[in-house]
Amino acid sequence: MAEKFVSERNLRFLLYDVFDIDSLTQYPYYQEHNREIFDMVLDTAMKIGRDLLRPYLQEMDKNPPQYVDGQVKVHPAIKPFLKECGEGGWIGSNAPMEIGGQQLPLMLAFACRFIFSAANYSAMVYPLLTDGAAHLIETFGSEDLKETYLPNMYSGKWQGTMALTEPQAGSSVGDITTTAEPTEEGYYKIRGQKIFISASDHDAVENVVHLMLARIKGAPQGVKGVSLFVVPKYRPGEDGELAFNDVSIAGLYHKLGYRGSPITQMSMGENDDCLGWLVGEPNRGLACMFQMMNEQRIDVGLGASGIASAAYYTALEYSKERIQGRPLSDKDPSKPQIPIIEHPDVKRMLLYQRAIIEGSLSLLFQCARYADLEVVLGGEEKERYSLLLDLLNPVAKSYPAEMCILSVSQALQVLGGYGYCDEFPVEQHYRDVRIHPIHEGTTGIQGQDLLGRKVRIKNGKAFDLFVEEVQRTMDLAMDMPRLRPYAEAMDKALKDLQEVTGYLMGLAERESAERFLADATLYLELFGIMAVAWQWLKQGIHISKGLDNNPAGAEADFLNGKLSTMRFFYAYELPKIKGLAERLSNNDGLTVDMKVDHFSD
Amino acid sequence: MAEKFVSERNLRFLLYDVFDIDSLTQYPYYQEHNREIFDMVLDTAMKIGRDLLRPYLQEMDKNPPQYVDGQVKVHPAIKPFLKECGEGGWIGSNAPMEIGGQQLPLMLAFACRFIFSAANYSAMVYPLLTDGAAHLIETFGSEDLKETYLPNMYSGKWQGTMALTEPQAGSSVGDITTTAEPTEEGYYKIRGQKIFISASDHDAVENVVHLMLARIKGAPQGVKGVSLFVVPKYRPGEDGELAFNDVSIAGLYHKLGYRGSPITQMSMGENDDCLGWLVGEPNRGLACMFQMMNEQRIDVGLGASGIASAAYYTALEYSKERIQGRPLSDKDPSKPQIPIIEHPDVKRMLLYQRAIIEGSLSLLFQCARYADLEVVLGGEEKERYSLLLDLLNPVAKSYPAEMCILSVSQALQVLGGYGYCDEFPVEQHYRDVRIHPIHEGTTGIQGQDLLGRKVRIKNGKAFDLFVEEVQRTMDLAMDMPRLRPYAEAMDKALKDLQEVTGYLMGLAERESAERFLADATLYLELFGIMAVAWQWLKQGIHISKGLDNNPAGAEADFLNGKLSTMRFFYAYELPKIKGLAERLSNNDGLTVDMKVDHFSD
Repeated sequence: MAEKFVSERNLRFLLYDVFDIDSLTQYPYYQEHNREIFDMVLDTAMKIGRDLLRPYLQEMDKNPPQYVDGQVKVHPAIKPFLKECGEGGWIGSNAPMEIGGQQLPLMLAFACRFIFSAANYSAMVYPLLTDGAAHLIETFGSEDLKETYLPNMYSGKWQGTMALTEPQAGSSVGDITTTAEPTEEGYYKIRGQKIFISASDHDAVENVVHLMLARIKGAPQGVKGVSLFVVPKYRPGEDGELAFNDVSIAGLYHKLGYRGSPITQMSMGENDDCLGWLVGEPNRGLACMFQMMNEQRIDVGLGASGIASAAYYTALEYSKERIQGRPLSDKDPSKPQIPIIEHPDVKRMLLYQRAIIEGSLSLLFQCARYADLEVVLGGEEKERYSLLLDLLNPVAKSYPAEMCILSVSQALQVLGGYGYCDEFPVEQHYRDVRIHPIHEGTTGIQGQDLLGRKVRIKNGKAFDLFVEEVQRTMDLAMDMPRLRPYAEAMDKALKDLQEVTGYLMGLAERESAERFLADATLYLELFGIMAVAWQWLKQGIHISKGLDNNPAGAEADFLNGKLSTMRFFYAYELPKIKGLAERLSNNDGLTVDMKVDHFSD
Repeated sequence: MAEKFVSERNLRFLLYDVFDIDSLTQYPYYQEHNREIFDMVLDTAMKIGRDLLRPYLQEMDKNPPQYVDGQVKVHPAIKPFLKECGEGGWIGSNAPMEIGGQQLPLMLAFACRFIFSAANYSAMVYPLLTDGAAHLIETFGSEDLKETYLPNMYSGKWQGTMALTEPQAGSSVGDITTTAEPTEEGYYKIRGQKIFISASDHDAVENVVHLMLARIKGAPQGVKGVSLFVVPKYRPGEDGELAFNDVSIAGLYHKLGYRGSPITQMSMGENDDCLGWLVGEPNRGLACMFQMMNEQRIDVGLGASGIASAAYYTALEYSKERIQGRPLSDKDPSKPQIPIIEHPDVKRMLLYQRAIIEGSLSLLFQCARYADLEVVLGGEEKERYSLLLDLLNPVAKSYPAEMCILSVSQALQVLGGYGYCDEFPVEQHYRDVRIHPIHEGTTGIQGQDLLGRKVRIKNGKAFDLFVEEVQRTMDLAMDMPRLRPYAEAMDKALKDLQEVTGYLMGLAERESAERFLADATLYLELFGIMAVAWQWLKQGIHISKGLDNNPAGAEADFLNGKLSTMRFFYAYELPKIKGLAERLSNNDGLTVDMKVDHFSD
């Protein structure tokens, strides 16, 4: 297995140069931190990745969780990892100190999650879910709930989950039927079933805390009647004793990949003894849950990019070691063969991966930057970053989710026949990464969220702010001779996006919602390419500044490699928006009008 | 598991309407056949697919071949299938009758291979390899070899293989080091190792016949010193007795998918007792092997399309049964949910699959049509079809190989979380189909073959013939009101292809081979989209004719479905050539110039 799975140099380039994480320490909220601390956190994350996670990557795949006597047994590596997550403050690392967090910038937390995901995505999901679930209790829970649950969750002793999906309600979450019956004691009695719930039961923790959507008896139909509950596997008594809460596991799913993490079917209240505690207001559960959902969506982007990063470094190492073929311009068979990395088509496949991974990561850090500023700013500025974050959420989930599949596929291709065999972990990465366009809202759902809701928020204000942000980057790049051609390409692409968006907003006025949103997935794809091109230009500014200092050695190699990757994105990826824009601008209702009967043969 | 895995209606539409297989029976070579026979063959193939292959699809995946005591044990379903293949004349079905074949048009054989591949790709590979290996002996082997081997191979008793790859020689086949030492008895002594050899040992046959590349001692270096041999596992004696021929299996590969077929490492001559018999002339082995290689490449296209077809019908059935969500224009939660096929984005995903599968299949049948005509025609006409076939070979391999991965991925996406689990066979199809851009020459190699060799054959004659063929279809379509817009789009796309090709031919003149071929993979992609658009227009002509007859019921549904799929290809897929053409027309040497050191971080 290749030793390298992420580029620490690139992480620091993004954190320190492109997104200037240091600048956050001027705000009181982050003032206890400094570069030294950031470096130390990164180093520790790398160490955890190397020592506690990566060694078990393939083992966890080959020995997936087992369902034995109603209990899920997971790989023994999970327990020490969760212990380390608890003790090291990795769960809730960006939560406020007053409630036991580390108050770190989210950007840094993202860098660490990226590292962990690259080292072992399945393992990473456990603390990530606990983090999100704890954050939900922290934001919307009663003081009682916070006291009871947060310390045990932040310490890694209790697992958190997000329990939405039911057999008849996947993408259509408003159709859940799990019920919550009020009692005089204040808690609710929960009855129902959930499916596809990640990390929802296992033996590496003492308890599992489900953040669960259910319907209070008599609530309105649809999303307006959905409430959020804490439903633990064991309910803690006054004395701290844990009593079984009638949450049982009906079975485990056997999955294509992502096998280190158990996904279960659950049943609540089979013995009429499952209690749940309301979080937030009744019937406002979905709005609350969206806090965790949005976090998890961005984490999906990080997970996808992390897996693709690990696959890339395996392919890179292989391409340098694998000797095969000769230069196309000198095929003399008496001369020795060359490492395949010297073939332009192999370099193309490697650059493709870098362009996607490093572009995705930049977009994700951009989101984190907005989130970090949202925490410390107020008024209009706060709203600005909040809107930008909202707009970019489906993009930062879906671009990496979709594109990292193709990226890993190219890594596999670099290894040829060996890539298809399990000697290298790339075939596992290929299986693992395929989950991402599915969980936390499919790509189709994200497209509808972007075009149907986000672009139209406040009469298009979020979209206008996005255009402003891109414009600002473009203006800076326009003045740098090395970047001018790319700034100009960006300018054209931005106009294309604006035109397409304008056309679609026109459709929204005069056509059915079906027709307006028929190609929302393509719009999401176009938007994603645009957003990542913007991020590459932003990186380009700092690459260019770095090169102006005439660096030598490894630093020069790093910056020149980045520059080529930026050029690659503009040469090979950005042009793809043309075909998308053509389709998006010619809505003929093809998919809306086609009759189901026409799919008969 | 969905009952349906291919559309028989569509196969008949292609065979009978679009490619007019009946017209072949006017030639003496095919005169013994007629529509009734074709129908009977198709029906039988469907029956075999349904009864002997598909029931074992998932079982063969879950119980892959085992290596026990130096022998490979495969699933028990393989033996009866090979017996049926032998008795039913499925091996060598298009070989001449005089040597035991059925003399069927290749087009019909393709239809059957497509059916078998859709039913169970791994199983299909066994007879397919025997077919190709036998054909190689038939074309280039001595009378002795033919007599000894062909009857046993056509009867399915002996397995054939294609043994090229070695540890240090994958894509660079000229670097093989397996040696063949001449003996006075006429045969050669073989020593060496082969890897990644499909179906190269198993217990469902009595013997395995390797068509193997090796280097006669003292032969020139590189491809010009490679010869072709028959190397059996057991060598047949005068009396028909079989004696072990010192070919041993060193191990099995554990693969991502395609698990029903054993891929082994082989070792020849460990005890200095491995004999091989020369096929064709010394040092001309690669030229001979390319007959089989080209056949196998097209079969890869069929295999990919077949797998995608099976995945599509699973997704289609699921989309009709799975109830989820409501119309975007009427989300009233008090109304019942609808089958997901009614959502435009799901229809889009289904149409995407159909556009790729039915477009690929049409291109493959086009190749078969050329091959069938090549058999019966002479002189210039024969050369015409031979050149067209040569040109399209890498396209007919790679377009389906690459695009059917995306097609299966969309099938998986239609099933959402269920697609990621092994309850449905789609996750298996997703693993199985990923082999195709790798085996029988990677996509990178195909791109170089297309742009570096095929487009330039005889000063561009093959390319000119291709343009003529497209032009002919366009002219016909231009006169049909229903098709005119698509013919016009095709016209523009063809001009784009010609311009890009012209630009690249200019590069070939004045730049290095590296630079000229740097984006050959993208050229292959563009060419593939163009070729499939052409095929959709060709299908469009027959769809349109059919619709002019005012069909009703199932026939109207079928034709309207086809029409929508054609429209889909032109609306969503054809525009992709714009981005590709832009990149291909701006060769900046990015990947050629980039230094390997720049990939250091």
